[in-house]
Amino acid sequence: MPAATPIEARPEDLGMVRYNADGLVPAIVQEQGSGEVLMLAWMNEDSLRRTLQTGRTWFWSRSRQEYWCKGETSGDRQWVRAAYYDCDGDTLLFVVEQEGKGACHTGAHSCFYRRFGSTSPADSEQ
Amino acid sequence: MPAATPIEARPEDLGMVRYNADGLVPAIVQEQGSGEVLMLAWMNEDSLRRTLQTGRTWFWSRSRQEYWCKGETSGDRQWVRAAYYDCDGDTLLFVVEQEGKGACHTGAHSCFYRRFGSTSPADSEQ
Repeated sequence: MPAATPIEARPEDLGMVRYNADGLVPAIVQEQGSGEVLMLAWMNEDSLRRTLQTGRTWFWSRSRQEYWCKGETSGDRQWVRAAYYDCDGDTLLFVVEQEGKGACHTGAHSCFYRRFGSTSPADSEQ
Repeated sequence: MPAATPIEARPEDLGMVRYNADGLVPAIVQEQGSGEVLMLAWMNEDSLRRTLQTGRTWFWSRSRQEYWCKGETSGDRQWVRAAYYDCDGDTLLFVVEQEGKGACHTGAHSCFYRRFGSTSPADSEQ
């Protein structure tokens, strides 16, 4: 199992994050090395804190209204290697080491396996 | 100026996109070649259509309540080379050729120039 590398974030950085009316912020997950965009999910303030402290991605499920730690049941865990926030503070980006077969619940490596204007799934442009 | 490459999306793909209560869907923009995640902005159904038809990124500004075509005033245009939607249909991903100095209004190449747990901006892990 890969090692977790917790991130000690400064309060001034955490204070820059802007949550929406539901207390959530979108979090992009990108694979280290390949650069592939794997998924987007949502975090609240507590799941961001958990993510940085544990070095694993924790999200807030809007449909189930509960926390989920990515890969906890599937084994397809995400090990955070770097974490960023954008200029407006309203989007997060996590660069991760993706364990297992991938990020998508369908079994695909990336959730973005369907391409507009193509008759077959193709990731070759990424 | 780079050439635009419009994308002819199939109705069945366009119909898979799920818009939120405000009629919006988050759109991730990734740079072709480098794989760098440049920004995230929001699209409605019409801005997605414009983006695919023109080969340039069109977003909906939530603060200004108007369409904006990325780089139209700054010259930092984005030329769409591939477009994807995710497994749930509630996030879009555009792979673009970024013209000019970059995607961020601050002048940074990527909007994600601030890193948690670091005292200086660093994109080296991407």
